[in-house]
Amino acid sequence: MRCRLLAHIALVVGFSCAVPASLQAQIGRSGAVSGQAIRSVLDAQRDAWNRGDIEGYMDGYDRSPKTEFVGGDSISRGWQTVLARYKKNYNSREKMGTLTFSEVEITLLSKDAALVLGRWRLKRASDEPHGTFTLLFRKTRAGWRIVHDHSSSA
Amino acid sequence: MRCRLLAHIALVVGFSCAVPASLQAQIGRSGAVSGQAIRSVLDAQRDAWNRGDIEGYMDGYDRSPKTEFVGGDSISRGWQTVLARYKKNYNSREKMGTLTFSEVEITLLSKDAALVLGRWRLKRASDEPHGTFTLLFRKTRAGWRIVHDHSSSA
Repeated sequence: MRCRLLAHIALVVGFSCAVPASLQAQIGRSGAVSGQAIRSVLDAQRDAWNRGDIEGYMDGYDRSPKTEFVGGDSISRGWQTVLARYKKNYNSREKMGTLTFSEVEITLLSKDAALVLGRWRLKRASDEPHGTFTLLFRKTRAGWRIVHDHSSSA
Repeated sequence: MRCRLLAHIALVVGFSCAVPASLQAQIGRSGAVSGQAIRSVLDAQRDAWNRGDIEGYMDGYDRSPKTEFVGGDSISRGWQTVLARYKKNYNSREKMGTLTFSEVEITLLSKDAALVLGRWRLKRASDEPHGTFTLLFRKTRAGWRIVHDHSSSA
């Protein structure tokens, strides 16, 4: 117990000595780093999709039975279920088309949660479906991952 | 500076002496209280809607220019814009119908942020539109309020 107390006190002294402005800058940097990490996950998803790799695209989602995909009237639960849904709806390279994300806005809610709003678009030979998405990212052991995806079509 | 240091140390000693289980229980209680507060906001929204009071319904949203409503291909920004959208789309008591929410799941992300997933349904004379919603609530000075609403129709 004495050791734990000392450790806590040392930590707090460290914090107390930090200049508030520099602490703010540190939080700002940490937010920027999280934003970049989230942006990288989305870029990797787009790249995987555009080489026809749905499993690679699914790496952006948390491999958890709690991961949710919501759209229209449907709520799909679990990474495997969401994967199966994508595989069913995009069962050919033609249907997958070329994916782009735009107007991506990342709002950090805590050190391990972020909300992401953006637009998606698929360029295909015969049409160009598009819409909006709201994602909840959580920082997991594997890195930032989507735990909730609510996507809509125009 | 000395006073600040002492205050910090006292606080940390207090935390170190707390029994982890009771601390967990305290966090659990605080989560339950937040969940109840959020549920109350949704109930108040439903009640306002069902007496034809769109402004009352809009009390559930944060009165901020950053409040967002997302649906289909559209992103509406700002409390006033979201109010105007509701007033345009539901310009009669008949169009408003009777609103119910179901399968509401509240996930507390931090002490001031929560994600809410659920289903909405409007019972009207001639039809019954329904769908899903994902809400981000933040704890504001006015209480828990919706800052982001992504709603879909079946």
